Amino acid sequence: MTTRLTQLLGIEHPIIQGGMIWCSGWELAAAVSNTGGLGTLGSGSMYPDELRAQLAALRSATDRPFAVNIPMLYPNIEEHLQSCIDFDVPVVITSAGNPKLHTAWLKERGRTVLHVVASSAFAVKAEAAGVDAVIAEGFEAGGHNGRDETTTMVLVPAVVDAVSIPVVAAGGIADGRSMAAALMLGAEGVQMGSRFVATPEASAHEAFKGEVLSAGEGSTQLTLKELAPVRLLKNPFYAEVAAAYARGAQAEELAALLGRGRAKKGMREGDLVDGELEIGQVAARINELKPAADVVRETAQMCEALLRRGT
Amino acid sequence: MTTRLTQLLGIEHPIIQGGMIWCSGWELAAAVSNTGGLGTLGSGSMYPDELRAQLAALRSATDRPFAVNIPMLYPNIEEHLQSCIDFDVPVVITSAGNPKLHTAWLKERGRTVLHVVASSAFAVKAEAAGVDAVIAEGFEAGGHNGRDETTTMVLVPAVVDAVSIPVVAAGGIADGRSMAAALMLGAEGVQMGSRFVATPEASAHEAFKGEVLSAGEGSTQLTLKELAPVRLLKNPFYAEVAAAYARGAQAEELAALLGRGRAKKGMREGDLVDGELEIGQVAARINELKPAADVVRETAQMCEALLRRGT
Repeated sequence: MTTRLTQLLGIEHPIIQGGMIWCSGWELAAAVSNTGGLGTLGSGSMYPDELRAQLAALRSATDRPFAVNIPMLYPNIEEHLQSCIDFDVPVVITSAGNPKLHTAWLKERGRTVLHVVASSAFAVKAEAAGVDAVIAEGFEAGGHNGRDETTTMVLVPAVVDAVSIPVVAAGGIADGRSMAAALMLGAEGVQMGSRFVATPEASAHEAFKGEVLSAGEGSTQLTLKELAPVRLLKNPFYAEVAAAYARGAQAEELAALLGRGRAKKGMREGDLVDGELEIGQVAARINELKPAADVVRETAQMCEALLRRGT
Repeated sequence: MTTRLTQLLGIEHPIIQGGMIWCSGWELAAAVSNTGGLGTLGSGSMYPDELRAQLAALRSATDRPFAVNIPMLYPNIEEHLQSCIDFDVPVVITSAGNPKLHTAWLKERGRTVLHVVASSAFAVKAEAAGVDAVIAEGFEAGGHNGRDETTTMVLVPAVVDAVSIPVVAAGGIADGRSMAAALMLGAEGVQMGSRFVATPEASAHEAFKGEVLSAGEGSTQLTLKELAPVRLLKNPFYAEVAAAYARGAQAEELAALLGRGRAKKGMREGDLVDGELEIGQVAARINELKPAADVVRETAQMCEALLRRGT
């Protein structure tokens, strides 16, 4: 399948594996890139030394294009950006921040730059900042998210109408059906996160993967909008957050409750009670652990079959 | 376009105009049915006499199939159901209640019954109750909605996998692109509400229609989950609701704030300050008033063209 996205990135299938903290190390990225998608290292959970070690490992595991996701709300951004140059990372995906800050610097150094947006207004700003494509991420997506709650079904065609660069759809996509739907909305590719958490290659704790497989409709919630909005599983930690809201807690109290290291505790260390477990709504549709290569192949094949059949 | 839904309902295009309180009287339903879709009277805002007057007018305005939507959380349900028999209404769409209550009674009297659901668990219950099809309505939809917040992109394929009867997608659908996306998700038709509010035939107040046209991303919010969850425009009335939540208001206080008649005040009488203005997120993508017949024709044509082209 050829779209402007496959041409831009030099990939076979217009499928990007989302960069996710504590879940997407070099093993997952290599498996996706080697199957013709775009694998992505999630640098948000990595110290600079760790990102460089991961880049070295990924470089030796694939000669296909891959990406690094840099959520600009985390520290170490400058060092991470420099590592992307040092290791000749072909694609940098920026998120959770202003695309004006680093896009020109990256473009001058020959990188392809994608930026994640949750509204068409930010998509227009990203295009003006010079990014090569935008990833339009809907309300149903896991992890950090926008404040407007606009869903993929509404957001993607709005962004497609607002910019002329390629648009990648994210949020709620986990198979060929949802990929075909995204392409009908005008996207030229998809980014999937949650689906790739439920793979043997994901670096997440096995207990967290188990929770993803058993999640149903209504198992996740977008919350903590006063800090940085995030979608997570409704585990006991979330119950504490909900109780805080119910008694009218303000941002300061919520920040103290969240504390530091909750995401690592949950997703990396497998603490299902006190940890923060970030995942998308589409976990409800993910019921088996599957090798990342199979995810890429099966998704692309089903999508192409549906588009050919036209129903 | 032929699907099991067009065959079940005897319509040309698999497009249902959603029944919406204060917005969908006989003029809108007739325009949609006469163009080959399924027009629907929204009985939730009608006293029994009014529904009968509307049915008489609709009967003389079209000889094509049409529906009555009966939200079971409103009073007068028994009389409304009897009117559907008296006026030989071909299709009854039930929502906001238990499908076990009335489905058998309606089926024994030869009606085709559709039920609106917001989860696959309720879809399974509706199928077991004997309904002919389910309408799977996502979080982005306007008006009354489910508690789980599952979006159309996630909900529709989940419901398609859970039942064997036809599934209609609702929530976020306003044109051929979103209709084609819904069909790729496995739906056999779509229900559109917000798009039909912005038509000359809708019985809503012109001032409310103007607000729908000027709405952008983030202009609506799902709220009042402690009463009956509803998506509405963020007008000054909503600001009062948000302020009540911020000070930790409980259900009783929220019910008192909502009071009675807010929806009529807003949508029928055009009070944009104190009225309740129910609309879907997709209002952000609706920017012109358009005859209902054009909506049906253009949506079907664009959808078919996209499915033929396969991208």
